[in-house]
Amino acid sequence: MTNSTYCVIMAGGVGTRFWPRSRQHMPKQFLDILGTGKSFIRQTYERFAKTVPAENFLVITNHKYKSLVLEHLPELDERQILCEPTGRNTAPCIAYAAYTLAAKDPDARMIVTPADHLILNEEDFRVIVGECLDFAEKHDALMTIGITPTRPDTGYGYIQISDTNPISKVKCFTEKPNLELAQTFLQCGEFLWNSGIFIWKIRSIIKAFAKYLPEHHVLFNAVRQAVGTETEQQAIEIAFAECHAISIDFGVMEKADNVYVRRGEFGWSDIGTWGSVYQHSRKDRYANAVPSEGCYLYDTRSSIVSLPKGKIAVVCGLKEYIVVDTDDVLMICPRSDEQNIKKFIDEVKFNNGEKHI
Amino acid sequence: MTNSTYCVIMAGGVGTRFWPRSRQHMPKQFLDILGTGKSFIRQTYERFAKTVPAENFLVITNHKYKSLVLEHLPELDERQILCEPTGRNTAPCIAYAAYTLAAKDPDARMIVTPADHLILNEEDFRVIVGECLDFAEKHDALMTIGITPTRPDTGYGYIQISDTNPISKVKCFTEKPNLELAQTFLQCGEFLWNSGIFIWKIRSIIKAFAKYLPEHHVLFNAVRQAVGTETEQQAIEIAFAECHAISIDFGVMEKADNVYVRRGEFGWSDIGTWGSVYQHSRKDRYANAVPSEGCYLYDTRSSIVSLPKGKIAVVCGLKEYIVVDTDDVLMICPRSDEQNIKKFIDEVKFNNGEKHI
Repeated sequence: MTNSTYCVIMAGGVGTRFWPRSRQHMPKQFLDILGTGKSFIRQTYERFAKTVPAENFLVITNHKYKSLVLEHLPELDERQILCEPTGRNTAPCIAYAAYTLAAKDPDARMIVTPADHLILNEEDFRVIVGECLDFAEKHDALMTIGITPTRPDTGYGYIQISDTNPISKVKCFTEKPNLELAQTFLQCGEFLWNSGIFIWKIRSIIKAFAKYLPEHHVLFNAVRQAVGTETEQQAIEIAFAECHAISIDFGVMEKADNVYVRRGEFGWSDIGTWGSVYQHSRKDRYANAVPSEGCYLYDTRSSIVSLPKGKIAVVCGLKEYIVVDTDDVLMICPRSDEQNIKKFIDEVKFNNGEKHI
Repeated sequence: MTNSTYCVIMAGGVGTRFWPRSRQHMPKQFLDILGTGKSFIRQTYERFAKTVPAENFLVITNHKYKSLVLEHLPELDERQILCEPTGRNTAPCIAYAAYTLAAKDPDARMIVTPADHLILNEEDFRVIVGECLDFAEKHDALMTIGITPTRPDTGYGYIQISDTNPISKVKCFTEKPNLELAQTFLQCGEFLWNSGIFIWKIRSIIKAFAKYLPEHHVLFNAVRQAVGTETEQQAIEIAFAECHAISIDFGVMEKADNVYVRRGEFGWSDIGTWGSVYQHSRKDRYANAVPSEGCYLYDTRSSIVSLPKGKIAVVCGLKEYIVVDTDDVLMICPRSDEQNIKKFIDEVKFNNGEKHI
C-alpha cells in the first residue's frame, strides 16, 4: 500500500495574521509559533512520514519558498517541490499535484494536507488517515476529514453529515458562518469542522475535475502530458495563467455527489490566530503563554509573549495582551484587538513600504 | 579669563535606572535618551565649550568608558580623560581633578559638572556660570548653582539660602527629603534644588579639602606632586585605594562656611527617571513621548516608547506605560511602577547573569 500512496503538502500560504512573527519571506508554515522545536511544515511532514515514504511526498509552494522547504524537509529531493507560478487557490494547486502524480502513477492514492495545522493526537490521526485510504481505495470517493466541533467557531468551514457513522456521506459544505449559525451547527450535531485534509484516488479526483472544473481539467491534463518533457514548465505556466482561481471546496467538493467525511477528534486546529496559539500553548499559573526562558512577568496574566531567540523581556501589568517582538518590529496589542493586525500592517506598509512586512 | 578656566565633567556614573536602555557598558551619559541627536556628555561638553577651550576640559570616568568618552568628545586628547581606579563618590573624584589641575595651573578656576543632566536654556545658564566664575575669582568661595524648585520633588537634594539675592550664602544642605518636608521647602521659598554643579578657584577647593577632608588632602596632594612623573599612576592608585568614599556635599559643602549658591531657572533636570524623560520629551496629542519615526500607536496615551534605531513598534491599548526595547531586552512597565526597575534587574541578573545588565 505504502508505495502507491502520496502525500501532497500545500505550503504556498503567505498569511499575515501572525505578523510581525510571520513575514512575506517567512510565512507561518516555516515558523515554530507554538515553541515545539519544529516548524509547522516539519511537523506536517513527520506526521505523514510513518504512512508515506519520503520519496512519495510532494510540496506545492511558491518558488520563493523552495529553498526554505528544502531546508525544513532535507529528506526531499528538489524535484519533489512543485512551484506554482502564481497562487490560484486550492483547486489549481491540487490539480497541479494530482495530474503530475497521474503521469507517474495513475493508480495511486493521494493525501492532501495544509502545511500549517496543528494535530495533537498523531496516533489517532494516523489511524483515521489509514481508514480513509482504505475507503478511498475501495470506493470512487472524495474523502475529507471532519473535526467534531467543540465551540461555535466562526473562522472555520463546516461540513454537514448525513448519518452518524464514522465515515458519512457529506450533505453540504458551509463556509465560515456567522455566530448564530455556528451555534445552531454546534447544537444540532450534524456539522463538522472542515480540516482541509483530503484523501482520494488520483483517478477519482481527476474524474471530478473533468466533470466539475473542465477548464482546469484540460489545462492540467496538458501538464500531465508534458511531465518530463521540454514543454513541462511551459504547460505549467499556461495552466496557471489561464485557469481561474477557485477553492477545491467550492469548485469540486460542494458539487460532487461522492464526497465522504471521516469524523475525528485528534486535537486539531488550523492555528489561524494568536488566540488559537494562546489556546494551544502551555500556560503558567497566571495563564500566560510565554517562552520557557527569558520572560520575567509581574502583575501580568492571560497574555502571550513571543520573543526572538536569546532575547529577554520584562513585562509588567498587562492583562490579556499579545506581545510579539522580532528583530525589526515590536507589536503590543490586547488579545481582543488581534483582528486589527491587518490594519496595522497596512499602515506600516503605507509609511515604511515592504521593509517590515 | 578663558585660559585659566577649566571644566571638569564627572562621567563615571553606572546607574541602572534607565535599564534596559542604559547598560553597564553603556551608561546614561553616553545615551541620547531624549532623542535630541546628542548624548548627554556631548551636550554637556557643548554647553561649556563656549566658555572653556577644548584643551581645558577634563573628564573623570572609569577606564572602561575612556574610549566611549573619546568617541563622544573627539576634541579631547586622551590625556584629558582621568580614569578613577575605582568609584569613591564625588569628593575623591573632584579631588583627583583639582589636585591634578593644581599641578599645572594652581591659579585656575574650575567648573565641576555632572555629565548627564539636561539644561534647556543654555544661554541663561552660561550667563549664570559667568557670574559664578567672576564671584569665585573675587572671593574665596565655594559656589554651587541652585535651581528654583517647581514641585516638592523628593529625589533631589535641597540648599537653604540665607537671603534672596541672586548669589546667597548657603545656610544648609538637605539630602532627599520626604514628601512632607519637600512640600514645606517648596512653600517657604528658602530652598533651592542642588544641581551638583560647582564653581571655585582651585586654591579655594584645595584649602577646603585640607581643612575638612585632611586625609583626602594628603593622598591627593601626593598625586599632585607626582603629576608628570613615573609615580603618577601609583599615587593615583594609592589615593583611591586608601581614601574613604564620600560625597563632596557631605564632605565639604555642608561643613564649609564659605559656600555660596547662585540661584537659577534655566530648565534644569537631572533626568534621573523615565518619568523625567517623559516629562521633558516632546509629546504627541495623546501625550505619548515616542520616537519621531516608526511608532504606530492605537488607543494609547501618556506612554513613553524607546526603540532601537530602525525598529518599528505597533502599540495598542496602553495607558501610562514605559516601553523600552533594545537589541536583547524588552521592558514593558506601567509608569507608576518604574521604581521596580532595580528589582527587575536583580531578578534578571540572578537568572541570566550579567549578560543583559
